[in-house]
Amino acid sequence: MREVAILGAGQTPIAEHWGKSLRVLAGEAILAALNDAHIDRADGLFVGNMLSGILNRQENLGALIADWVGLRGTEAVKVEAACGSGAAALRAGLMAVGSGAMESAIVVGVEKMTETVGPQTTAALATAADADWEAAQGLSFVAINALIMRRYMHEYGWKHADFAPFSINAHANAVHNPNARLHDPISAADYNRARMVADPINLLDASPIGDGAAAVILVPAETVRRNGRPIVTMAASASATDSIAVHDRRDPLWLKAAFDSAQKAYAQAGVGPDDIDVFELHDAFSIMAALSLEACGFAERGQGPRLGLEGQIGLTGRVPIATRGGLKARGHPVGATGVYQVVEVVEQLRGEAGPGQVPGRPSVGMAQNIGGSGATILTHILRAR
Amino acid sequence: MREVAILGAGQTPIAEHWGKSLRVLAGEAILAALNDAHIDRADGLFVGNMLSGILNRQENLGALIADWVGLRGTEAVKVEAACGSGAAALRAGLMAVGSGAMESAIVVGVEKMTETVGPQTTAALATAADADWEAAQGLSFVAINALIMRRYMHEYGWKHADFAPFSINAHANAVHNPNARLHDPISAADYNRARMVADPINLLDASPIGDGAAAVILVPAETVRRNGRPIVTMAASASATDSIAVHDRRDPLWLKAAFDSAQKAYAQAGVGPDDIDVFELHDAFSIMAALSLEACGFAERGQGPRLGLEGQIGLTGRVPIATRGGLKARGHPVGATGVYQVVEVVEQLRGEAGPGQVPGRPSVGMAQNIGGSGATILTHILRAR
Repeated sequence: MREVAILGAGQTPIAEHWGKSLRVLAGEAILAALNDAHIDRADGLFVGNMLSGILNRQENLGALIADWVGLRGTEAVKVEAACGSGAAALRAGLMAVGSGAMESAIVVGVEKMTETVGPQTTAALATAADADWEAAQGLSFVAINALIMRRYMHEYGWKHADFAPFSINAHANAVHNPNARLHDPISAADYNRARMVADPINLLDASPIGDGAAAVILVPAETVRRNGRPIVTMAASASATDSIAVHDRRDPLWLKAAFDSAQKAYAQAGVGPDDIDVFELHDAFSIMAALSLEACGFAERGQGPRLGLEGQIGLTGRVPIATRGGLKARGHPVGATGVYQVVEVVEQLRGEAGPGQVPGRPSVGMAQNIGGSGATILTHILRAR
Repeated sequence: MREVAILGAGQTPIAEHWGKSLRVLAGEAILAALNDAHIDRADGLFVGNMLSGILNRQENLGALIADWVGLRGTEAVKVEAACGSGAAALRAGLMAVGSGAMESAIVVGVEKMTETVGPQTTAALATAADADWEAAQGLSFVAINALIMRRYMHEYGWKHADFAPFSINAHANAVHNPNARLHDPISAADYNRARMVADPINLLDASPIGDGAAAVILVPAETVRRNGRPIVTMAASASATDSIAVHDRRDPLWLKAAFDSAQKAYAQAGVGPDDIDVFELHDAFSIMAALSLEACGFAERGQGPRLGLEGQIGLTGRVPIATRGGLKARGHPVGATGVYQVVEVVEQLRGEAGPGQVPGRPSVGMAQNIGGSGATILTHILRAR
């Protein structure tokens, strides 16, 4: 497979976009990415989306969005892997360009979640879990994560307050991100007194849903000419699964699919955890930030919270995470999130993250996107040159 | 991109499988395909499905099904392109193996539609159309096709009875297909007196929904050893889109995406319509059979029905279509259909279609899968050697 570069990136703010339909949101991100890439079309379109059928009564998003952005006729398809849909679409686009089947591809992640009422959205999100053996028992997605977090606290002796640094860091970084859903910094006191959602997960452990879209343009790396900005290439792309139901796993506190996909990605890129300058992880809940750090080799098993408590996850820390706010504060428009993460890594590797920039010219960035409670996990490593 | 072969194929009967869940159906087809290929695992799983979110409250099908068939951990994803989801998953799997990203892939199309009540299924199918500008106006999917058929009859002077041969041929061919949804032959009189659904589409113009799954195994062609059966390779794979809403098209009676994808496929395979020995087309409604034949170069514009009236679409005709029953009688479990078509072409090219076999050793077969009312169309050409 030939090497692929990210020629352009774009995103919309994450918000309650009641005045914008799915196609309009996706179109804004795509046009921004095309503009950034200085091109006006591509050979294929890959749409990452999870919930358009249930929440927007719209499938066939490929044709819908291709036409809207002026590319009627262009090959287009939707890729779904629950909350990992964005990265799954990226990987499909990568294989299309990498294989030589096309010379350029647009990857867009889009989700529109706020125009429906709460219980409907909660039920829709539960389709990421096992419908027969989890959701049908009344478990919402937050509830599943709450069971994991409670068990983790019991097993490794952490208190709820020990997870505060993940949320505090994410909110601090979102302050300067104009596309973030939330812009307010939070304190440990805010975290501790936040309203309970599903014990022990409170409101400041959980990422907010939202409407938004993010897009990148993929081309063969050999065709990219230097134009004053670093060239960002895809150094690794890997995907792995685990059982969809958490109770089917030997160890519910170990994200095996994160470990597997990260190991594959490290091998492809020829790097290890110590080489990662920025890591956009899938902090849908604070417990997931801890588990991801452990599975990817940044912390010992059961010791994820220590990284936060020791100040290692900030912009100047050993492993900067959620540098633009993460799912927690940038927001989590589920099927779009994986592309937002990659757009943010591109910003960091180009040195275009403004006040949220990781210092010292980061050259290797990683993004990890999770579908379900660890069921489908994709890891991408990007490199600047 | 390296050449890819279909090493194995499998399918379940299409029926009302109330006792079998999505994963069980998909698993039966996958295990049949693995068994046919004499292998027990693969590097990746690509699931074609349209409606699992709405009808089965289940997304994340990749992880769900990979685990069920004993491949926990394997990369897996769902691909959606409305009723074209099956072929879209096939194309994604082809690019994965063709690119060298993996050495083998399972492609499964699966849909479970009959356990929900009628109006819910009809509303779900309308998500293939433009939600804002078609479905929101009350147009069901049958209604959209009825408008097209009515206009076609007006424009080209055909009577409703002129479409009868499409349905009669499909039903005749399904009689001997143990996996078909309907096994009863029909007469012209049956066709003419069938209950009206959406004028001029009556019950015998329309394909039945159903529950079912079909699967194929993809591997690099160079790795396949002859074992007494013809080796089936993927000679072409192409995808194109059109506007999602029919009213946005310059000519609503011309399937431009079928033309575009067929032309690309013909060029890739180095063949033309005269070289196609068997053509599994997307006869969701009889009007779609006519339009597909025209767009793919088998009939002049507006002359599709003539092929049926002149007896050219039967097993011994110039262009055998719906050889195992087509969507009309084999059945149309929407997201699975595209894979059923390919499994049936494999049967024909291997000479394993029994009483439904196209005579004279067919060596080139084509399958065309349509998502929406011509919005997303994929054309695949297979070759036996």
